Amino acid sequence: MIKTDMLIIGAGPTGLFAVFEAGLLKLKCHLIDALPQPGGQCSEIYPKKPIYDIPGFPEVLAGDLVNNLMEQIKPFEPGFTLGERAETIEKLEDGSFVVITSRGTKHNAPVVVIAGGLGSFEPRKPPITNIANYEDKGVAYIIREPEFYRGKKVVIAGGGDSALDWSIFLSDIAEEVTLVHRRNDFRGALDSVEKVSELSKIGKINLVTEAEVVGLQGEDHLESVVIRHKGEASDEEIKETDYFIPLFGLSPKLGPIANWGLEIEKNAIKVDNSYDYQTNIPGIYAIGDVNTYRGKLKLILCGFHEAAIMCQSAYQRIFPDKKYVMKYTTVSGVNGFDGSKKEAKREVVKSIN
Amino acid sequence: MIKTDMLIIGAGPTGLFAVFEAGLLKLKCHLIDALPQPGGQCSEIYPKKPIYDIPGFPEVLAGDLVNNLMEQIKPFEPGFTLGERAETIEKLEDGSFVVITSRGTKHNAPVVVIAGGLGSFEPRKPPITNIANYEDKGVAYIIREPEFYRGKKVVIAGGGDSALDWSIFLSDIAEEVTLVHRRNDFRGALDSVEKVSELSKIGKINLVTEAEVVGLQGEDHLESVVIRHKGEASDEEIKETDYFIPLFGLSPKLGPIANWGLEIEKNAIKVDNSYDYQTNIPGIYAIGDVNTYRGKLKLILCGFHEAAIMCQSAYQRIFPDKKYVMKYTTVSGVNGFDGSKKEAKREVVKSIN
Repeated sequence: MIKTDMLIIGAGPTGLFAVFEAGLLKLKCHLIDALPQPGGQCSEIYPKKPIYDIPGFPEVLAGDLVNNLMEQIKPFEPGFTLGERAETIEKLEDGSFVVITSRGTKHNAPVVVIAGGLGSFEPRKPPITNIANYEDKGVAYIIREPEFYRGKKVVIAGGGDSALDWSIFLSDIAEEVTLVHRRNDFRGALDSVEKVSELSKIGKINLVTEAEVVGLQGEDHLESVVIRHKGEASDEEIKETDYFIPLFGLSPKLGPIANWGLEIEKNAIKVDNSYDYQTNIPGIYAIGDVNTYRGKLKLILCGFHEAAIMCQSAYQRIFPDKKYVMKYTTVSGVNGFDGSKKEAKREVVKSIN
Repeated sequence: MIKTDMLIIGAGPTGLFAVFEAGLLKLKCHLIDALPQPGGQCSEIYPKKPIYDIPGFPEVLAGDLVNNLMEQIKPFEPGFTLGERAETIEKLEDGSFVVITSRGTKHNAPVVVIAGGLGSFEPRKPPITNIANYEDKGVAYIIREPEFYRGKKVVIAGGGDSALDWSIFLSDIAEEVTLVHRRNDFRGALDSVEKVSELSKIGKINLVTEAEVVGLQGEDHLESVVIRHKGEASDEEIKETDYFIPLFGLSPKLGPIANWGLEIEKNAIKVDNSYDYQTNIPGIYAIGDVNTYRGKLKLILCGFHEAAIMCQSAYQRIFPDKKYVMKYTTVSGVNGFDGSKKEAKREVVKSIN
């Protein structure tokens, strides 16, 4: 059982900055995220995209913002449970919470902070009626371990960077790679599009455009896919394959948190914005894009503010008898749990006579 | 009369960032500040001091933060009335406000945003009973134009950087410079302390330590000061001088805004934090350190959030019939009023066959 002061669900920018604000109050944090690395959307979806509305940055790449935040919170030594989704929550008699992930990891803390962004990112699935029957039996939505496909036949579907890049990568590993895309146009980095085109010409990628996978066949495991070509409905071919990997991007879903008994409105968690961003369950807070209140703006900078305010209230919940007097970092510096100390240089005091 | 969409009183970090958020909504801003340059405290009091709690900056000098914000808002071409203090406000029949400064400059806007920080900075005055009689008649708290003191006798009081630096500077201009300080210890940059010590040895600065100016004498204009030496009360000397300049730092005061009919609590302006940071007077908002509400934290990052939320409400007030749909800068870029355009590079769309 991982024990901490503040358990943060979601390691996007808001969740990460909460570690800093908590650290100033000497509270230790642990973060859970379904993605394999910190940073949320900023790392997973658009690390190379510039953001223009972070105060003090006329322009910052999303990935750099995450790196900066990771450096800023380093002194407070946060723990991470990554690649696991928070599934269940239970309140113990002492008022603390136990959160268990999709892989069974248990966490215990007096305060739980949901900083889940737009939710956990679930793969967009193609509308093939029996697709669920083949999940983990030949159908995968994410490539976790490319070596798994060595010597196998693979059909990839999609027209973006993921589909292009994995087709290129697997063309050296798999026995056969087929890339199926509805259009002739690909949306991806220029060099990826060109590389796929080359690999197609020399027969390393079997490129099927203006076509869609519309059916799956096989007894216990996937054995073939049905590809329908644009135009007449009867123009279908059956393609033998070991694996079908549709890479249509990720779509955010609130996920299991939706069943935690929290007040939900428009796929977001309602909070008390007039005070501390606490949910209807005392001890559970929601900050950043995952929450909603009158006038809510889904901006990263608002998540930062909500994190700072939330920490004050969380501190009072954890230490009801202590009176916390806020100190400014400009005055008292930043004291890391790792023994590090940042502080402004003192003015010089010098005797003159 | 200067006309604008949003009149912002206070050009500190919060006021500056409000220009950016307003700009995204196509609202023009004009800022008033009593200080001669933008940046508020960050520029005036501690430009070289590191701040550690701005999200995304493990460390940033206050002056650099201001420079970054100025660059960030540049596309939105804010107007500035600097070195003038907002004195009076009046509501016109059309619901807009007229704000007049200490120098009589008139401004008109449908929305007024007070981003006044801890207030306007007033010089700390020494407790000499008749000092007010000599203000502008030999007593000054700020040195605006050093040339004014050419060939004159000047007594400076204080033990910090201001007193040290101005004593050094004026020693080349004034006929005679006397620096009076209560202690032997000076709080200032090491080289300033050493420089004053040197200038004292060669007779360019008349250094009087462990002493205080306790009285002022003169008919229409200051003619001499009474200096009391530490120890016996009778140990006083009368020193002839043309000017007495006590440099004891600046102290924040809410100032004339306190008389605008706004609800005030603990020297701060009460706002509706459950929605839009509006004051009790519709159309007047207060953001940043100048406002107060339950759970308020006087942090720069909170001012940024308040600025963003406030702008949405201000927009509705200015354009009650328009429905604003927020666009993300990551998606739609930043379109400056100056014709500049920042946007993320588009993904490449390339046909493959």
